[in-house]
Amino acid sequence: MEVRLPRLSRVAVCGGTHGNELSGVFLVRELLKTGGEAGAGTSVQAVLSNPRATQLCCRYIDTDLNRCFTRATLDVPAFDTESYEVTRARELDAQLGPKGSPHAYDLICDLHNSTSNMGLCVIGFSDCDWICLHVFRYLQRQMSDIPVRYIHFDLPDKDSFSLDSVGKHGFALEIGPQPHGVVRSNIYTSMKDGVRHVLDWVRLFNSGSVFEGGPVDVFTAVGHLDYPRDCETRQITAAIHPRLQDQDFCLLHPNESVFQTFSGQVLPYEGSEPLYPFFINEGAYYEKGVALYLARKRSVTLPKLRVCKDGRAGDLMSEEKEE
Amino acid sequence: MEVRLPRLSRVAVCGGTHGNELSGVFLVRELLKTGGEAGAGTSVQAVLSNPRATQLCCRYIDTDLNRCFTRATLDVPAFDTESYEVTRARELDAQLGPKGSPHAYDLICDLHNSTSNMGLCVIGFSDCDWICLHVFRYLQRQMSDIPVRYIHFDLPDKDSFSLDSVGKHGFALEIGPQPHGVVRSNIYTSMKDGVRHVLDWVRLFNSGSVFEGGPVDVFTAVGHLDYPRDCETRQITAAIHPRLQDQDFCLLHPNESVFQTFSGQVLPYEGSEPLYPFFINEGAYYEKGVALYLARKRSVTLPKLRVCKDGRAGDLMSEEKEE
Repeated sequence: MEVRLPRLSRVAVCGGTHGNELSGVFLVRELLKTGGEAGAGTSVQAVLSNPRATQLCCRYIDTDLNRCFTRATLDVPAFDTESYEVTRARELDAQLGPKGSPHAYDLICDLHNSTSNMGLCVIGFSDCDWICLHVFRYLQRQMSDIPVRYIHFDLPDKDSFSLDSVGKHGFALEIGPQPHGVVRSNIYTSMKDGVRHVLDWVRLFNSGSVFEGGPVDVFTAVGHLDYPRDCETRQITAAIHPRLQDQDFCLLHPNESVFQTFSGQVLPYEGSEPLYPFFINEGAYYEKGVALYLARKRSVTLPKLRVCKDGRAGDLMSEEKEE
Repeated sequence: MEVRLPRLSRVAVCGGTHGNELSGVFLVRELLKTGGEAGAGTSVQAVLSNPRATQLCCRYIDTDLNRCFTRATLDVPAFDTESYEVTRARELDAQLGPKGSPHAYDLICDLHNSTSNMGLCVIGFSDCDWICLHVFRYLQRQMSDIPVRYIHFDLPDKDSFSLDSVGKHGFALEIGPQPHGVVRSNIYTSMKDGVRHVLDWVRLFNSGSVFEGGPVDVFTAVGHLDYPRDCETRQITAAIHPRLQDQDFCLLHPNESVFQTFSGQVLPYEGSEPLYPFFINEGAYYEKGVALYLARKRSVTLPKLRVCKDGRAGDLMSEEKEE
């Protein structure tokens, strides 16, 4: 099977969606200086998503911007909110979308950092967006010094909550470990290389290159664990067990150690199915009640992919299938 | 030479002086649950220093609490400040001091975390406080799985700025690397072990144990480097070079790489003297204009130490010297 999709004329590279994830902040500032052209007539727009949070070097001012792109939140009447991020989400939706419309950017790549040992992850809401999955496989092949994985949050379009969901195609590029409020040169360089490869892929695709089909591994999130907490204060009473810390994407088996309480007790994984943990001990997720996510690993077969013969941009549905 | 010093009757273990340094926050909460007795009639008071910053999981509300214990700041008239931390500093000075008075706590151990690869550091303002230096040497001998070092900021008493300076003796116990807003089990356990050994040492000292003299290495801060910054925006334009990152306490020679700009240029160390860098890429110091501190390493010879024969508490000056 071969799939043909419209060319990607307008690409956005966003950073500072979380103002304390500094690799993306500094990389977007670099891109804003150097300007955007991916070649082959593709425009690249760099966007600093949350300027106020970036200024204060915090994740957000009023609410997590990267949870504001659901249909429900974007549709809140303008006069019903005083949240800086909800207002900013609507500005970004107007600039890069509107989400779900033919006017939306063709591809949005949103840059993130994690305190977890994530390597480089492409995170999307689809396991059949062939643009995103082919980009992922290209990154995996080009980047030899960092593990590259695809994470799939299985949500319907209306519930997809992140900035990248505003584009016709989009994904988060998540790299770690890096403390929030800190930039580490190796992580910054991986992100810079990752973005360069993404734009290389877009240029190749737009120029008519054929990308062969084949299998890739996809990690589909199926649940999460919260930290053990005190019933009354809701404060956490345990940390990730040292044997699990930094073991993102290593299979976790039933009864293996997950937490160690602050008084020293070990708590095991009580699930019955071996699953892959990721976002282990991500700093920003303490307040969200997430100590780690759990995923199933599946193989997805990519079709052969090339650009539509007539190169029409904005033609969302034009899949020309050939045997 | 033998030095005899008064027994240490009242010890304070403080955490959450910076509200997002979580090992100390959670360890102090544990200590508050279990109560304080080091044995040998010594009381141990656990103190959560900055409750509001801890609640919000940020470093501070208005200003850095751990810079508020200078004579100048403590002496600001009460009605002249609306800063939460200045007010809180005065409360802590009343509770654990007053600083410089015979009523002050005998020993204050203030718990901190760093994003830098610091191992465990005992940080003090004196290179001849034999209590602090003997505690340091005891930690170094007891803790085999983490490097233990002594950092000396050479400031007169009136300018010593940190909470631990309120006690007759005091030091910060700084452990890293740990991202701010995150607790890592291995770092938490090192801190817990460290505090246990400090209290063990106090019990041994108060019980009349003799601590032999001998040499220890002391890292005395002699300067610092800021990040390269844009002249207009003051934003940083480079990160710590990947070859220097995490190399705290490894000798830095002239012309070795220190920074890598976001456009890829390498910037060397321009000093003429080889020095020891520490607090390399500490997240909280970006706003302070500190990319790293630089230290000279010196050998300090500790005298033999034991408690005063009559065990008088609060007798600050009773050094009974014997040949």
